[in-house]
Amino acid sequence: MESPPLDPLFNPRSIAMIGASTSPRKWGFIILLNILKGNYSGRVFPVNPKAESILGYPCYASVKDLPQTVDLAIITTPAAVVSPLIDECGQMKIPFVVVITSEFSETGSEGAALEKDVVAKARKYGMRLVGPNSMGIFSSLTNLHAQMPPVMPLHGPVSMFSQSGNVGVQMLAWGAQEGVGFEKFVSSGNEAELTCVDYLRYFAADKRTRLILAYLEGINPGSNLFSAARAISRKKPIIVFKGGRTAAGSRAAESHTGSLAGENKIFKAAFRQAGMLEVKTSQALMDCAKAFAHCPLPKGNRVGILTRGGGWGVITSDFCEENGLAIPPLPAPLIEKLDQLLPKYWSRSNPVDMVATIAYDPYLDCLEILAHWDGIDAIIALGAGRRAPDYTYDRDVRGTPQLMEAIEMVTRYFEDRAQKPDWILQGINELVSRTKKPIVVVAIGSEASHKSNLEDYRVVSYPTPERAARVLRQMHKYSHFLDSFSG
Amino acid sequence: MESPPLDPLFNPRSIAMIGASTSPRKWGFIILLNILKGNYSGRVFPVNPKAESILGYPCYASVKDLPQTVDLAIITTPAAVVSPLIDECGQMKIPFVVVITSEFSETGSEGAALEKDVVAKARKYGMRLVGPNSMGIFSSLTNLHAQMPPVMPLHGPVSMFSQSGNVGVQMLAWGAQEGVGFEKFVSSGNEAELTCVDYLRYFAADKRTRLILAYLEGINPGSNLFSAARAISRKKPIIVFKGGRTAAGSRAAESHTGSLAGENKIFKAAFRQAGMLEVKTSQALMDCAKAFAHCPLPKGNRVGILTRGGGWGVITSDFCEENGLAIPPLPAPLIEKLDQLLPKYWSRSNPVDMVATIAYDPYLDCLEILAHWDGIDAIIALGAGRRAPDYTYDRDVRGTPQLMEAIEMVTRYFEDRAQKPDWILQGINELVSRTKKPIVVVAIGSEASHKSNLEDYRVVSYPTPERAARVLRQMHKYSHFLDSFSG
Repeated sequence: MESPPLDPLFNPRSIAMIGASTSPRKWGFIILLNILKGNYSGRVFPVNPKAESILGYPCYASVKDLPQTVDLAIITTPAAVVSPLIDECGQMKIPFVVVITSEFSETGSEGAALEKDVVAKARKYGMRLVGPNSMGIFSSLTNLHAQMPPVMPLHGPVSMFSQSGNVGVQMLAWGAQEGVGFEKFVSSGNEAELTCVDYLRYFAADKRTRLILAYLEGINPGSNLFSAARAISRKKPIIVFKGGRTAAGSRAAESHTGSLAGENKIFKAAFRQAGMLEVKTSQALMDCAKAFAHCPLPKGNRVGILTRGGGWGVITSDFCEENGLAIPPLPAPLIEKLDQLLPKYWSRSNPVDMVATIAYDPYLDCLEILAHWDGIDAIIALGAGRRAPDYTYDRDVRGTPQLMEAIEMVTRYFEDRAQKPDWILQGINELVSRTKKPIVVVAIGSEASHKSNLEDYRVVSYPTPERAARVLRQMHKYSHFLDSFSG
Repeated sequence: MESPPLDPLFNPRSIAMIGASTSPRKWGFIILLNILKGNYSGRVFPVNPKAESILGYPCYASVKDLPQTVDLAIITTPAAVVSPLIDECGQMKIPFVVVITSEFSETGSEGAALEKDVVAKARKYGMRLVGPNSMGIFSSLTNLHAQMPPVMPLHGPVSMFSQSGNVGVQMLAWGAQEGVGFEKFVSSGNEAELTCVDYLRYFAADKRTRLILAYLEGINPGSNLFSAARAISRKKPIIVFKGGRTAAGSRAAESHTGSLAGENKIFKAAFRQAGMLEVKTSQALMDCAKAFAHCPLPKGNRVGILTRGGGWGVITSDFCEENGLAIPPLPAPLIEKLDQLLPKYWSRSNPVDMVATIAYDPYLDCLEILAHWDGIDAIIALGAGRRAPDYTYDRDVRGTPQLMEAIEMVTRYFEDRAQKPDWILQGINELVSRTKKPIVVVAIGSEASHKSNLEDYRVVSYPTPERAARVLRQMHKYSHFLDSFSG
C-alpha cells in the first residue's frame, strides 16, 4: 500500500496558527490553547501581526516571518483575509491548510465566490485544504487537538470524518464517556478542496485505523465516494450515518453545509452496494464503533443467549428475531452438559435461563459451553459484569445492633467485591480471544461500568439487549458482505 | 372514585415475614434485610420455627404465635409447605400474601397442581395473593422494599407492574440512575390469583400514581385487561412493553411464566384500541416514563428545534419526520424577531440553528420566542444544559507559565460554572410551567447530568435527539387519543 498522502496533515511536525489571538473569547486563542494543553508533540507558531507573544510563545507577524517552514497552517481569521493568507502560505510552500473560518459557501453566493477563489489559489500552490467552515482535526499519534471544543478524545482504533463539526466532536466526547477511543478525526466542513473521499482513502491506508466512521449530509453527484468505498469496505468496515434522509432533514442540511442533500433511497442502495453499513441513529453509530473496534465478527446470524432471569431473555429473543438474527434451539448433548451445572428448573432452551441462584455462580461455565457450540455465531451475555455498587440504603436507618451490623457487613461485601477484578469479565475476554466468537455483555449499568468493562477487560457491553442485538445485526451484515467475496 | 382495595397490600401497617432466615444466603434473610434497611414505616415480624431471633428481632414459630394480626404475609419457604401456610394465614385473617417462592406452574404440571391448591385455599379465606414466583413489591409511602434484589428506587409518580421480576426491578434500578422515581411496583409472578388487571385498576385509582408502566408477556385470553385499560387510559397514560412478540420470544416466555404468549398483531391492535402506548424497546419504556411523568403533553405533532450546530438539527429533523412529527417552517414575523438576537448567518428556518457564538448566549431568548409560537406544539432544545465539566487535559502538560496559568484559569472557569445553577435549565423549567408546552432537552451528557437536569431543574433530557423524538411521538399519540374523546 502506497504511503498515505495526508500524513503531514494529521501528524504535522510543526504548525502555524494563523489568527492566533490573545483574547480567550476568540477561536484563535481557544484552538491554540487546545493544541497546547493536548500536549501536541510538534512545534506551534502563533501568527498575529498585533501580538508579540501569546500564552508565552513568541508570535510572528506573518508566516513569512516564521523561523522555519511548517507542515500545516490553521487559519481562524475573518473570511475576507483568508485568500491573501493562502497566497502567503503557498509562497512559504506550506503543504496543508485547515480553514476553520466560516461564512463561505454555506452562507450564500458571496461566500461561495470567496470559497472558489480560495480553492483556486490553494490548487495553484498544490496545497491541500481542509474546510472552510471546519471545526478542526484530531490525531492520536502526535496528540494533535486542533479543534474548537475542548474535547479530549480517548485514543483507539476508530477514525472518523464528519460533514458536521458538531456531530463529529460530540461523537468524540461521547466516545470518551463510553470508553471508545479514536485514532484520527476531521471535521470536513464545506469540503471545498479535500473531500470525504480523500479522508476515506487516507483512513483506509492508515495502519492505525481499524474502523471508519462517517457522518454525511451532502454527497456531490460526481463524487467517487461509492466506488472508493466499495474497494475499501472489503478491508475495513465503514459505518455511515446519513443526515438529510427526509424532506425536513434535507431542508435543514441545505442551510447548513451549502450542498443539496440527495434522495434517501438512492443513497441507501448505494451504501449497501458499496458495503458501507448505514446506521439509523446516532446511538447506533457509537454502539457499532464500540463493537466493531473490539469484538471479532460473527460468522453467521445465529445467537446464543445466556440470562439470569427469564424476562430479559424474552426481550432479547424478540429483538434478535425482529432484526434478522436467529435463536436456534439447544441440541440434546448441550442440554445434558448444562444440566450438570444448573438448578433443576433451568429453561433447557435458548435463551439459557440460569434461574436465580445465590450460592454458586456457574455463569462462566455456561458461557464456556455455549461458546463451543458450533450451532451459534455470537453470544449475548445478559447480566454479566458487575454494576457499580448499588447496595445503597437509607443512611438514617435505625434498628437493632444486629441489623446495623448486617448492613455494614453486606455493604462491605459489595464494596470489597467492587474493588476486586471481575473474574466473569476476565473470563469472557479470555473466551472471546480463544474461540474468536463475539460475546456481547448486557447489563443495566452506569456508563462508568460499561466504560470500565471495555477499558479494564476489553469486553463490549451495553445497557440494553436491544442495543446489543442491533450491533450484532450490523456485524453479521458486514461479515456476510465479506463472505460474498470469498470462494 | 371508590377507595382502592389493594392499599393494605402496598402500604401494610405490619408484615409477617414467613420463611425469614438467619442465613445471608437465603431469600428469607435478604428480603427481610431489604425491608429493614429501606426504613419500612410499619412493623415486621420474622416467622421461623427454628430461630429465636433474626437480626435482633424476636422470631415467631408460626403466624399463630404473632402478638397481633398483620396486613400482609410474605412467604419465602420451599414450595411444598406454602399450602399449609396459606391455611395458617387464613385462620389468622391475614388479608394479603406475597408468595416469593417459585417452582409452581412455571415449572410444569406438578407445580401447577400445587399452585391451583394454593389459590383455592386463598380464595376460601378471601385472601388476595401476589405471585407465586414474585420478586416482591415496593411502595414509596411506607418505604416498603419487600424485594429480592437490593434495589432502592427513587420516589416519584410512576407505578409499574411487571410479569418479569428481573425486568421490573432493573427498571427500578435504571430509574434510580436516570432520576425517574417510582410510587409503587409489583412483580406479579405467575398471577395465579391477583392479576395484572387488578394492579392496573389499583394504580388507576391510586392518587399518588400519575403514570402506569407495564411489562407483559402472557395475557390470558379471558382477561379483561383491555376493557379495563380502555377506561383507565383516558385518565392516566399506560405505557406497555410486550415480551414474546416473535416466535423466539414466545418460546422463551413460555418456559418462563408458564403462559403462552399470544399473537403479536392481535396484541398490537388491542393495545392501540385500549389507548395503551406500546413501546418497542426497554430504553423507550424508561425514556417515556421520564417524559410522561415530568412534561406536559403536546397538543399536536408540530415540533420546533433549537440547535447550536447544524448537524444535530438535521439529525433531529430527519428522525422527527420519520416518526410522524412535523417540522413547520418559520413564519416571517418570527424570523424578524430572531434576527434581533442571532448572528447574521443564522439558519432563518426551523431548526433554528443559532450558529456558534461564544460571547453572548441568546439561547433562552430564542426558546422564549419559539415557545410562544402557536405554530408548534413541542420544542426539542439541542445543546441546552451543561455537560459535566469536560475541560479535562493531560495533567502532564508542560509549557510556558502563561500557558499553565491559562489552563488553570479556564479549568477554574468550567469548575466554577459547574457549581453554579444552570440558568438556561432554570429558564426552561419556568418556560414549560408558563406556556404548558413541552420542551425536551438533548445533550450528549453523562447519565449524572441528565439525572441532575431532572432532579435539580425538573427538565427532561436525553443524550440523543432520536430518543427525544421517539418520546414526543408517543406523547403526541397519547394526546391525540385523549382528543378523540373531547368535543
